[in-house]
Amino acid sequence: MKFGGTSMAGTERIRRVANIVRKQAAGGNEVAVVVSAMAGETDRLVNFCREANALYDPAEYDVVVSSGEQVTSGLLALTLQSLGNKARSWMGWQLPIHTIEAHAKARVSTIENDNLVSAMETGEIAVIPGFQGVSNENRISTMGRGGSDTSAVAVAAAVGADRCDIYTDVDGVYTTDPRIVAKARKLKAVTYEEMLELASVGAKVLQTRSVGLAMKAGVRIQVLSSFVDDNATPADDHPGTMIVSEEEMNELVERGEMERQHVTGIAHDKNEAKVTLTRVPDTPGSVAHIFEPLAAAGINVDMIIQNVGRDKGETDVTFTVPLADLARAQVLLDDKAEDIGFNRVITDSKVAKISVVGVGMKSHAGVASTMFSALADRGINIQAITTSEIKVSVLIDEDETELAVRILHTAYGLDADDEAA
Amino acid sequence: MKFGGTSMAGTERIRRVANIVRKQAAGGNEVAVVVSAMAGETDRLVNFCREANALYDPAEYDVVVSSGEQVTSGLLALTLQSLGNKARSWMGWQLPIHTIEAHAKARVSTIENDNLVSAMETGEIAVIPGFQGVSNENRISTMGRGGSDTSAVAVAAAVGADRCDIYTDVDGVYTTDPRIVAKARKLKAVTYEEMLELASVGAKVLQTRSVGLAMKAGVRIQVLSSFVDDNATPADDHPGTMIVSEEEMNELVERGEMERQHVTGIAHDKNEAKVTLTRVPDTPGSVAHIFEPLAAAGINVDMIIQNVGRDKGETDVTFTVPLADLARAQVLLDDKAEDIGFNRVITDSKVAKISVVGVGMKSHAGVASTMFSALADRGINIQAITTSEIKVSVLIDEDETELAVRILHTAYGLDADDEAA
Repeated sequence: MKFGGTSMAGTERIRRVANIVRKQAAGGNEVAVVVSAMAGETDRLVNFCREANALYDPAEYDVVVSSGEQVTSGLLALTLQSLGNKARSWMGWQLPIHTIEAHAKARVSTIENDNLVSAMETGEIAVIPGFQGVSNENRISTMGRGGSDTSAVAVAAAVGADRCDIYTDVDGVYTTDPRIVAKARKLKAVTYEEMLELASVGAKVLQTRSVGLAMKAGVRIQVLSSFVDDNATPADDHPGTMIVSEEEMNELVERGEMERQHVTGIAHDKNEAKVTLTRVPDTPGSVAHIFEPLAAAGINVDMIIQNVGRDKGETDVTFTVPLADLARAQVLLDDKAEDIGFNRVITDSKVAKISVVGVGMKSHAGVASTMFSALADRGINIQAITTSEIKVSVLIDEDETELAVRILHTAYGLDADDEAA
Repeated sequence: MKFGGTSMAGTERIRRVANIVRKQAAGGNEVAVVVSAMAGETDRLVNFCREANALYDPAEYDVVVSSGEQVTSGLLALTLQSLGNKARSWMGWQLPIHTIEAHAKARVSTIENDNLVSAMETGEIAVIPGFQGVSNENRISTMGRGGSDTSAVAVAAAVGADRCDIYTDVDGVYTTDPRIVAKARKLKAVTYEEMLELASVGAKVLQTRSVGLAMKAGVRIQVLSSFVDDNATPADDHPGTMIVSEEEMNELVERGEMERQHVTGIAHDKNEAKVTLTRVPDTPGSVAHIFEPLAAAGINVDMIIQNVGRDKGETDVTFTVPLADLARAQVLLDDKAEDIGFNRVITDSKVAKISVVGVGMKSHAGVASTMFSALADRGINIQAITTSEIKVSVLIDEDETELAVRILHTAYGLDADDEAA
């Protein structure tokens, strides 16, 4: 079980969490709990680090920021004890949770599970601070913001858990953003691949890396809300969304527990920007000149289109980069203007990427054409297209985001009969 | 060097601390720094624990409350780095600082100094969270409130430091409380024994246990203030009070750096209460019946007087206990009323203990009689007396505390020529 910062914000909320944990344990389950810091605490600690040293040493930053989860893990263990449960906290260095790579963005390498398994077998609830581990140099390491989801999945994998329940402030994964489409439906299950596509295009329920790790390790995740009434056991009475393998999804469909859909959800992402280079020489290698410096700078280029220009031997090249990297990309391209040989850089940050996602489309043609005609019918212009096995994305004018999401949600038959709660 | 919570309260103050540390390092010294949590932080964390579980598990309490020093140690290392110094933090479990005995009141057993010495030899400043160590079970332990002083002395002993500078919010040890006697003088040096007597009777500059450890390990302590102007190096320009062995004190006197005094300081303590049992049978063993149950309950009895009563074969017994234990003592005595066989328990919490302290009185008679006549001259009634080799204490009415301290400060020639700053 994993609880986020909003669920851990203060001793009263920690008591609610303890009650949820306790009911799982009372149901005969061996339970390990991964916790985030109290909401706001990590920001407070990060600010201290910035004030102390603008160019902070990530190893010392990790010492400071990891303390937030240390506090909540101790407090949850204390609260569970006060409810009559056996419980103890296990710091990242105590289990240990070994990490590799750089401080402040470490990755779990291995978790030694002996301590954890023997404690859990005696009925003791293990409480583990998320986000933290220990480096090869025996120093505290942290996994980057949102890393507690990854901690939870890694712990679940280490103990061979039946399920990793991630409690958050939403009660599951929806067919689309319910703030845009009132008839969005909560999904009973999605596959890892779908969740990755949905997360990467803006449905930020889980940290992307945690989903990748779960897929690799075969950990079944359930996303659900800790803000349900105190007398219910959410994991049982208020099921969230299961994130499972494609095989399990197929079994669910065969058993009639899930309907087979071609499209599982509609995602949108306003954090992209469009860059067009005009009059690039249409010679071998010229496109490589554009993307090599961007790749070297760690800037992810997503959609790419090449249009033959009006003049022979020249072409316009359009692509998207994350909005946060736009300024940096522009500087890099200006520096390389002579090498690449373009005329102008035109940028547009008022764009949005709309994606339809679904494992069902692997075996079903026509998903893309449904999308294009539904948007064309309402006069929405498509500026770029990119596809994968389970996703079709288009780039449109940012102002048309909500309209496009609603049109597509209806077009693929995703609307619920009633409005979402 | 050790800095308390007021000195570490926020990143600006930590920058002042870093500047003080940096100047010591720049003077060619190898430096280890022990830090407290930000002022108020430990209270905040203790309150969380109480809210989570009124009868908290001290092992989990330690996980929670030790985080305050973890934060400040990381922040001081970051700040030192920002000033161009090599620095890193070392958690209690990383050195490690091994502790024994119960959680929340652990004692240092050994500190492994290999890491520390090699780091310091390369010019790296070691920053160590005070108050924390690691138990035999590899769990975080803490040493009780004020334990950072003890951490500092233990670290100084482990690395064979020339000196343990304890920065606090007073600038040294005074002949008496300067809030009572404006002409109190800052002492250049006191012996461990004197400091222990002064601390135990209310001059709470250092945690008593840290002074005992320093005496045992031969660590020279300097008490000084971190609140002096930024451009001075306090350790050199604003010397505080050295706490040293009697041998070193004798050398200082022989070299003419200190004047030989019969009395070093006057302390007062309002945290005692007087208990009188009337008409106790004057038989062998009856007094033992009084003090055995108190000792078993961990209540320290200090002054004891026995007066022969009006009736033959009976006596009144008066003694003092800490004010905080008075209610508990009274219950215990009432329970044992039949065994002891007294008539009534009379308690008085409006008393104060005034002590004159000085190694000089070992070789000088008349210190006690000076005290008694000075107080008698002003009509102050002495209710009880206790003495040690280097201390004479009397119990008086609490209302006369300030008057008695002033009278004695003058009587022993301790008044400064000018008023203290």
